[in-house]
Amino acid sequence: MKLYIGNKNYSSWSFRPWIGLRHAGIPFEEVQLWFDHDHGHPEIRAMSPSGKVPVLADGDLVLPESLAILDHVARKLPETGLWPADPLWRSRAMAMACEMATGFSALRAACPMNMRRTPAPIKTGAEVAGDVARIKTLWGKALADSGGPFLCGSFSIADAMFAPVVNRFVVYAFETDAVTRAYMDRMKALPAWQEWEQAGFAEDAVVAEEEV
Amino acid sequence: MKLYIGNKNYSSWSFRPWIGLRHAGIPFEEVQLWFDHDHGHPEIRAMSPSGKVPVLADGDLVLPESLAILDHVARKLPETGLWPADPLWRSRAMAMACEMATGFSALRAACPMNMRRTPAPIKTGAEVAGDVARIKTLWGKALADSGGPFLCGSFSIADAMFAPVVNRFVVYAFETDAVTRAYMDRMKALPAWQEWEQAGFAEDAVVAEEEV
Repeated sequence: MKLYIGNKNYSSWSFRPWIGLRHAGIPFEEVQLWFDHDHGHPEIRAMSPSGKVPVLADGDLVLPESLAILDHVARKLPETGLWPADPLWRSRAMAMACEMATGFSALRAACPMNMRRTPAPIKTGAEVAGDVARIKTLWGKALADSGGPFLCGSFSIADAMFAPVVNRFVVYAFETDAVTRAYMDRMKALPAWQEWEQAGFAEDAVVAEEEV
Repeated sequence: MKLYIGNKNYSSWSFRPWIGLRHAGIPFEEVQLWFDHDHGHPEIRAMSPSGKVPVLADGDLVLPESLAILDHVARKLPETGLWPADPLWRSRAMAMACEMATGFSALRAACPMNMRRTPAPIKTGAEVAGDVARIKTLWGKALADSGGPFLCGSFSIADAMFAPVVNRFVVYAFETDAVTRAYMDRMKALPAWQEWEQAGFAEDAVVAEEEV
């Protein structure tokens, strides 16, 4: 399998399947296509049917969408536990993954993922505060119901989908409670997180649109 | 199972699971919660963990997100064929569903679903045109590869997720080619589509924000 991703410093959509596959120990080849906002991302458009990264190539299948990539791999390799084995927790994991994939547009627009950013708060409005509050509630309820250490107990697609939000909470220095902080610490301690973060630190491409 | 939905005339997110469940012949109780933009949707907020419709209640499980609801029901009742049986087509259906759920924000912002609207074009920009072109390409490729009559052959979650876009293409009178038009005609001819549309016609609540 070949995973096409964007800049590790900035590409939140790429980070989701990458951390899922890497944490699960699934071998894949990685191909980096660089963001180029000024020219409409020609390298990405040439490869991706949707004009976006990430894309997974698996034999003849060319699959866009971070959640679809994770779902494809989780169904192909159920022993990885990327989807929870319990059907009800799987439905909850899917709902969490979808809520992240489709929502929180205020937070995502105001606070782009940025691994290199020196943590500091920025001025944001009520909509971002609403997104942050909803995410804390969602995490808190899942962790309480599952018993942790991850959202559905063991690490799952739900955690992979929220990984970029963990970075946003850190680098824009949002206020967090003890439960939220402990979950974020567990995510940041994952070897797969560390590997991605170090690679992001090592990139020197600066994309002005993503620097807030 | 109980499906909580919004206004049938306007709620594109509600239409997706509703048409999927109804077309598949799955019995469910329907509860309508009305849009109330002026007051932050108090009826919906009181019920839904994410503050949005649709929500599915299945025993103790309270599940938001249209795609998560469809996935839950499709896995619970695989005989409905809501997910394609072939694993590769299932991955493609999921990718199409995700691309719809997460994208096409220009089209969705400029052209809200509106069952009652008298078909007429509106002025839109290059971003909407890009969304429309991508959707036509996506539909065309899926129909060509599967042989139709629906995106993955038989009706699936991919079609349910795109149902509101079929309405948008009709009521904002976008230019369509023969393949696109034939697919839209097949969607509109579904008894489940007809039933939802008639109910939308019969509603008299007018939401100014959704009238363009």
